[in-house]
Amino acid sequence: MSAGAIIVWEILGTAALIVLGTGVVANHVLRKTNGNNGGILFINFGWAFAVFTGASIAAPTGAHLNPAVTLGLAISGKTPWSDVPFYFIGEMVGAILGAVLCWAAYKLQFDDHPEPENTLGIFSTAPQIPNTVWNLVTEIIGTFVLVAWILLSPVAAAGGDGVPTFGNSALGYAGVSFVVLVIGTSLGGPTGYAINPARDLGPRIAYAFLLPIKNKGNANWGYSWIPVVGPLVGGALAALLYLGVHNLT
Amino acid sequence: MSAGAIIVWEILGTAALIVLGTGVVANHVLRKTNGNNGGILFINFGWAFAVFTGASIAAPTGAHLNPAVTLGLAISGKTPWSDVPFYFIGEMVGAILGAVLCWAAYKLQFDDHPEPENTLGIFSTAPQIPNTVWNLVTEIIGTFVLVAWILLSPVAAAGGDGVPTFGNSALGYAGVSFVVLVIGTSLGGPTGYAINPARDLGPRIAYAFLLPIKNKGNANWGYSWIPVVGPLVGGALAALLYLGVHNLT
Amino acid sequence: MSAGAIIVWEILGTAALIVLGTGVVANHVLRKTNGNNGGILFINFGWAFAVFTGASIAAPTGAHLNPAVTLGLAISGKTPWSDVPFYFIGEMVGAILGAVLCWAAYKLQFDDHPEPENTLGIFSTAPQIPNTVWNLVTEIIGTFVLVAWILLSPVAAAGGDGVPTFGNSALGYAGVSFVVLVIGTSLGGPTGYAINPARDLGPRIAYAFLLPIKNKGNANWGYSWIPVVGPLVGGALAALLYLGVHNLT
Amino acid sequence: MSAGAIIVWEILGTAALIVLGTGVVANHVLRKTNGNNGGILFINFGWAFAVFTGASIAAPTGAHLNPAVTLGLAISGKTPWSDVPFYFIGEMVGAILGAVLCWAAYKLQFDDHPEPENTLGIFSTAPQIPNTVWNLVTEIIGTFVLVAWILLSPVAAAGGDGVPTFGNSALGYAGVSFVVLVIGTSLGGPTGYAINPARDLGPRIAYAFLLPIKNKGNANWGYSWIPVVGPLVGGALAALLYLGVHNLT
Repeated sequence: MSAGAIIVWEILGTAALIVLGTGVVANHVLRKTNGNNGGILFINFGWAFAVFTGASIAAPTGAHLNPAVTLGLAISGKTPWSDVPFYFIGEMVGAILGAVLCWAAYKLQFDDHPEPENTLGIFSTAPQIPNTVWNLVTEIIGTFVLVAWILLSPVAAAGGDGVPTFGNSALGYAGVSFVVLVIGTSLGGPTGYAINPARDLGPRIAYAFLLPIKNKGNANWGYSWIPVVGPLVGGALAALLYLGVHNLT
Repeated sequence: MSAGAIIVWEILGTAALIVLGTGVVANHVLRKTNGNNGGILFINFGWAFAVFTGASIAAPTGAHLNPAVTLGLAISGKTPWSDVPFYFIGEMVGAILGAVLCWAAYKLQFDDHPEPENTLGIFSTAPQIPNTVWNLVTEIIGTFVLVAWILLSPVAAAGGDGVPTFGNSALGYAGVSFVVLVIGTSLGGPTGYAINPARDLGPRIAYAFLLPIKNKGNANWGYSWIPVVGPLVGGALAALLYLGVHNLT
Repeated sequence: MSAGAIIVWEILGTAALIVLGTGVVANHVLRKTNGNNGGILFINFGWAFAVFTGASIAAPTGAHLNPAVTLGLAISGKTPWSDVPFYFIGEMVGAILGAVLCWAAYKLQFDDHPEPENTLGIFSTAPQIPNTVWNLVTEIIGTFVLVAWILLSPVAAAGGDGVPTFGNSALGYAGVSFVVLVIGTSLGGPTGYAINPARDLGPRIAYAFLLPIKNKGNANWGYSWIPVVGPLVGGALAALLYLGVHNLT
Repeated sequence: MSAGAIIVWEILGTAALIVLGTGVVANHVLRKTNGNNGGILFINFGWAFAVFTGASIAAPTGAHLNPAVTLGLAISGKTPWSDVPFYFIGEMVGAILGAVLCWAAYKLQFDDHPEPENTLGIFSTAPQIPNTVWNLVTEIIGTFVLVAWILLSPVAAAGGDGVPTFGNSALGYAGVSFVVLVIGTSLGGPTGYAINPARDLGPRIAYAFLLPIKNKGNANWGYSWIPVVGPLVGGALAALLYLGVHNLT
């Protein structure tokens, strides 16, 4: 697949993921919405089926949508290293675009919000209890589960044609959304389950530099590297597990 | 397929969609129901699997159930323009019929309701913050995601036989219901995600002219064109995206 | 299939349906449970996947589990009339058995319950607003949607081998559980969606004559015929729709 | 399959099951999490898709993850008795490992928790009303439903190649997660649905001997045998049902 096609499909899929994922948090957080205070299961379902929607759009490229997935697939030999930069570009551009679309959909609610300085949480994650080491641990474990599942489960690799992710199997897309749902319910408590550098950094960049929210807060750059590094480490460790198991059995 | 068959199947599918979709809102809004105050996730699940039920009934016609889908499929060359009027007729008649059935199922609760003038919201959408431009933007983005997914995702086109929507693939029907679920959780906050002109206008007509609810309120005709025009624009834009991507890759 | 086999499979499937369906209501209603006051979506999910579990166990007989389904399939020519009595026997015996198992699982909670006279609602339905005509209408519409979906949707008939329900298609079982979920969210408000004579009458008989609940209430026999007759009428009307559409297209 | 491979895959699958299953309870129980007080449906969904994730990882070994499943499959002749010890080892080691990972993900929240003596419930089950006989009955019924479904349903055995559980069928994994969801909503009220000796005993051992939670409580060893014996009896009874039905029809 050409570099341009990788970028286009990853932009489309990641933009869908992020407009829907940040959208459910906007719906929960902002007042004068139908989903105000909709609750954690509501948010988890929103993110889970945001993944379903975005991943099943980006089928031609294997639906990475996530640099940690791309890295894990490259280490495990399933994605050529020469394609990795194009995946990263598409994922980041798509994530930024999705955040802008979320803002547009909720523009009136952002204008109405009484605490505009507290709107970063709609777009990017933050820890409930800040701590560099243990926040990293939580993000590593969450992403490890995601990428290990993608590499090891026959549901993810159901296409069976060498494509490393979901191929044309509709069940693969449903499956990865179920996995993201449970990572949210079960490992999202401490840090908000970024588990995807583009999902966190893209909207953070959009928030800092693009979105015209009056009196918006700062982008919490001090924390911003943790939901980038943690997921990349988790994805890499999952790839090592895959290679180890692959050699063993 | 004959014009009559298109109309019959679209009536059946859209009626199922609307009786179940408006039904969950009735269950949430009206008192003396088992679902009173059931919450936003309850409502989102109701509409999502209302789509599943209606779409998988209307399989023979590709299960449009939605003029914005019909328009998007016509622009993208997947539905003949000559069939479009019959789809529109079936969708509108089915939506009106579904709203009447919802009223019949909840007749005792409508009679008991202490605020009968506030029952339009069971049948049709309204914005949390009225604003012509931005309400249109929200409806355009929501419908764009829906129709883009239907056109681009292999889950939707899984039948693979030229039928533009879900063919005989059960997963396509589950998939579109997952996409509607997440559009509800994530983009339904500001305007109630009509994302379908028939879903909004049909029940509004039923409310205004057919339903014998005592002291019922007005049908808010001033807003009524936005959930018609917004979805049609969103569906058309998604078709243009599809044509562009199709030429590109 | 032999009469004995029909009875055995329908007993197994219907018992699974009822122990899980009445179980979720017990979990919600009784105190000193983990699911106390779990809410309407919790109950709707319980019943929906109770159907999934029971139906996918009773696959060899087409997984009726419901006399209204059996009647609809018989009228539409898909189940021989000579098999109908054996289906009815299995469905009723299974429903009674399931109710007894639910009581056994929650025995300590029943003993602890401060209002033992108000426990019928765990086992059988009751209307929020009693009214013979309109309670019947609600049950007819709900069952009509269920049986029409089973007869018309290719998801239900996906087996494609003449077996009228779900054959060996796993998606059919998921599909019918999604349909029951949305009937619950959307049409269950007024009467509690019996939509199945055995589901309502079997546990009512168990409650009245078998369950050793101290100071239990009466079985509300005055209402008991409505969730029997309404579903049978709804199932029959759906079969007539199916025959009409079948001849038309 | 070699003993080592059985152990490795069952460790991986059971560790995924337990980190996600105990994780959702940690998210609900501990303060300063995004899921604090998330509710019973939130917990039930977490455990259900924890099963999906773990089972679809452990596909090569048939995804037992549960000594009660292993026992039921051995009695029914589908798993060689000589493999049983290796399954048990993998299940127990995986469960202990999963509990340790859950603690690591929520380490900061455990340190912050004001009632560290009340944290056993995150890892292992306890009855709402203690009673040896009836607690056993509840666990037996819940596990019986699970193992009977695995043995009898064509969804579970959809692989059709002699593999007794889910083979390569993605739907089998979704199916078993739906069944665990409904066992949770419907039979989890009295005892917390261990329905799996490893799920309960492994984390209990981790809690007692491995986890460095300050001022942690005791491991309630007096109750610990019930969620081991009950599920094993339930699994064995389901296997006897399977053998009986198999001979009958």
